[in-house]
Amino acid sequence: MWGENLHEQRKATVQLHYPHGMHTTIAEGIAEYLPEATVRTATFEQPEHGLTEDVLADTDVLTWWGHVAHEDVDDEVVRRVHERVLMGMGLIVLHSGHESKLFRTLMGTTCGLRWREAGERELVWNVAPGHPITRGLPEVFVIPEQEMYGEYFDIPQPDELIFISSFAGGEVFRSGCTFRRGQGRIFYFSPGHEDHPVYHQTEVRRVIANAVRWAAPTAELQPYPTFKVTPHSPIGWFSQTRSD
Amino acid sequence: MWGENLHEQRKATVQLHYPHGMHTTIAEGIAEYLPEATVRTATFEQPEHGLTEDVLADTDVLTWWGHVAHEDVDDEVVRRVHERVLMGMGLIVLHSGHESKLFRTLMGTTCGLRWREAGERELVWNVAPGHPITRGLPEVFVIPEQEMYGEYFDIPQPDELIFISSFAGGEVFRSGCTFRRGQGRIFYFSPGHEDHPVYHQTEVRRVIANAVRWAAPTAELQPYPTFKVTPHSPIGWFSQTRSD
Amino acid sequence: MWGENLHEQRKATVQLHYPHGMHTTIAEGIAEYLPEATVRTATFEQPEHGLTEDVLADTDVLTWWGHVAHEDVDDEVVRRVHERVLMGMGLIVLHSGHESKLFRTLMGTTCGLRWREAGERELVWNVAPGHPITRGLPEVFVIPEQEMYGEYFDIPQPDELIFISSFAGGEVFRSGCTFRRGQGRIFYFSPGHEDHPVYHQTEVRRVIANAVRWAAPTAELQPYPTFKVTPHSPIGWFSQTRSD
Amino acid sequence: MWGENLHEQRKATVQLHYPHGMHTTIAEGIAEYLPEATVRTATFEQPEHGLTEDVLADTDVLTWWGHVAHEDVDDEVVRRVHERVLMGMGLIVLHSGHESKLFRTLMGTTCGLRWREAGERELVWNVAPGHPITRGLPEVFVIPEQEMYGEYFDIPQPDELIFISSFAGGEVFRSGCTFRRGQGRIFYFSPGHEDHPVYHQTEVRRVIANAVRWAAPTAELQPYPTFKVTPHSPIGWFSQTRSD
Repeated sequence: MWGENLHEQRKATVQLHYPHGMHTTIAEGIAEYLPEATVRTATFEQPEHGLTEDVLADTDVLTWWGHVAHEDVDDEVVRRVHERVLMGMGLIVLHSGHESKLFRTLMGTTCGLRWREAGERELVWNVAPGHPITRGLPEVFVIPEQEMYGEYFDIPQPDELIFISSFAGGEVFRSGCTFRRGQGRIFYFSPGHEDHPVYHQTEVRRVIANAVRWAAPTAELQPYPTFKVTPHSPIGWFSQTRSD
Repeated sequence: MWGENLHEQRKATVQLHYPHGMHTTIAEGIAEYLPEATVRTATFEQPEHGLTEDVLADTDVLTWWGHVAHEDVDDEVVRRVHERVLMGMGLIVLHSGHESKLFRTLMGTTCGLRWREAGERELVWNVAPGHPITRGLPEVFVIPEQEMYGEYFDIPQPDELIFISSFAGGEVFRSGCTFRRGQGRIFYFSPGHEDHPVYHQTEVRRVIANAVRWAAPTAELQPYPTFKVTPHSPIGWFSQTRSD
Repeated sequence: MWGENLHEQRKATVQLHYPHGMHTTIAEGIAEYLPEATVRTATFEQPEHGLTEDVLADTDVLTWWGHVAHEDVDDEVVRRVHERVLMGMGLIVLHSGHESKLFRTLMGTTCGLRWREAGERELVWNVAPGHPITRGLPEVFVIPEQEMYGEYFDIPQPDELIFISSFAGGEVFRSGCTFRRGQGRIFYFSPGHEDHPVYHQTEVRRVIANAVRWAAPTAELQPYPTFKVTPHSPIGWFSQTRSD
Repeated sequence: MWGENLHEQRKATVQLHYPHGMHTTIAEGIAEYLPEATVRTATFEQPEHGLTEDVLADTDVLTWWGHVAHEDVDDEVVRRVHERVLMGMGLIVLHSGHESKLFRTLMGTTCGLRWREAGERELVWNVAPGHPITRGLPEVFVIPEQEMYGEYFDIPQPDELIFISSFAGGEVFRSGCTFRRGQGRIFYFSPGHEDHPVYHQTEVRRVIANAVRWAAPTAELQPYPTFKVTPHSPIGWFSQTRSD
């Protein structure tokens, strides 16, 4: 669980909802719905933002919540996490993480969107019933107060569209999207503004736990196929390939 | 332009908005925004519903509006239109056409959805800027009064998602979707209830005209590759293939 | 494991490779790589082809191998299995099952392809490393002797392309494809001609076992959202929705 | 037509096939099959690689062939072209352009692949009959001698898969792929090694000309929707939107 953990130190509302930081609340939600997972947290202010080579080598799925410090995240850490995703580490990008260097690098687009802070009702519609990420979720759920995120959301067409949200003001948003990049699975999920207690809500916690399970690698992370051997491939090289 | 043309004969409201039938108004919209097209109409009550082999052989793109008579459409005509789509004829399915035998056959699912007749505001959001079907359209447009169509909409994941609608009551809907089936291009577009003058609205007419242009075959319709020659393919058969 | 089980009774080569029927060998492969699964078989000649309402109600994932009797499969059984897939039952369609009524109904296209029986080498290339279906598989594996299946394969664009095969004669084929239809997950996998011992091969067995695990429903099968309640949805109906 | 134009100055084989540079031959092919286009060329050695703001402002579709100098292309020019693609400029990436900074930035992955220089036969299979890019092309065409490019090709899943190639040595490759990024359309097409006269071949020229037509913007290039107005969107902002 990577959390920027800066709003929490600066704004009274955020401290009220998340006295131990948003990353801690998100971690508790995963522990609740995915008890077999080992959950750890890391934050912006730690050395290397808490995302050292060793930490990443021991991480199956990373969640990412950031906002004000996007541009201050170290390029080398971004490069390292990016490579790890391509090798197969799962990645869950939350809310304002849409504008992080990491997500923009993986998408190749600006990842811009419309927004409004009016504490208005968000409805989250499940458009992928039967998908592992919607397990146990109803057809729609209500978040009483949220920041509005609206289209046009500048992302590549998702591999799978999971949720579409509407807001009281009339906007819509592709609020749950999956992408595969390299061997890694990515899920973007927009609910979760720091001024509202969204990560305490049952349905939101369940979605994130489901997504962590879905994004977990199915085998030990490995260098890419294209890295594992030299990409130069003499005639018949494949007669030597073997199953694990 | 295929129109069922039954509501028009039975309901005063529909006659008021569409005195010459909805198919005629839709045809006028295409003539306005796609003047190079030759537009003809056909209706349910004509022999073979107006969709004879000869008519289809001379049709590049078919639009389909039906509702009360879905189950009375002749299976042989459905089979014939289906085959023609696979050969490359464009198909634009409008509003309640989502439950037609033709669309369900092409999709393989129930194509069910939620609905409500409350004459409420629909916002149509463009989530594919730059796509030929959204040419000249704004980021969002308002239909003042419409029937609500809401998720879950039971269709295969579209090849491209073009529009998402929201309704005053809070529902969302994938209101513009493209699909390729065989050599044919299909566009589903939900706006257009018979009780509201939706097909007189500028943006709606422009979308349909853009879609007709997008769905038009790029070459003369041909039997499928898999029909053209016997699918049994001796070694080296392809050394005889030629460009057109 | 549904097997037509007719070639096995008629051809000596098939009896040699599959003395107890191909469905039995396929079932053994799943038992080997997915020991937690309860595996049962059903065949064409059983009453209702062995696919009664009760059997389906107790089936999470169905595999389908058929060929000569496609047109003799009862329409009511096809309708029943189709509905069950939309409700969330997984479906693995094998080899010549591409032309079954069931697969064609789910796809909406002819599902035609090119073919040649020359016992030639097939190479199966993994184009989705990191996907659960390719777990434990190498970058490519060799099937020494197979029937050729070649493009153009008339299917909708798959949700995910998993394998591409090449044949000694030069043809290519999208040999592993996933599709979601309703709440169900479908995997088409082409290796497996009755004249060759393909279902005895390690990699092929592993792919099928992986696919069964991937296609298994994540929750108890339920009627569709759109069937569960009336699709007519009065304003505010969703304030009553609940998580499971 | 952007051509690196360095191999042409250094290798005798390349000079033989392309005495005036590959970019000139590619330009001639487009002029032949798309006579309404105005074709211009630019090369690595020009100031700003010939891709100034003014040149880009007057370009609807850019083709990109590069190889040895990928890392020497100026970052500012890459940024400028990237932004222009997101605004709607079409982009055709050819052969070794798969490893250019521009393509990798747009994809978010390594874009690595397998390769072998053995002058072997490539078969290019059309898996999207009816698509504008395959207009006038046969089901398969033969390139007598080519460099092998093989899977795994590390790209995001394409929006549309158009061509799959096989090589005499048995490898396969997704040789024609479309992607939308922002308002721009991208086509990657792998045939075209500098040591073989591939860009003189009829089918290859036709594919590139078709792709240029397909990728051309449908309207004047505009700043993104999300840039055009401030993304902060007060309640009801959309009541002011207008069609073009």
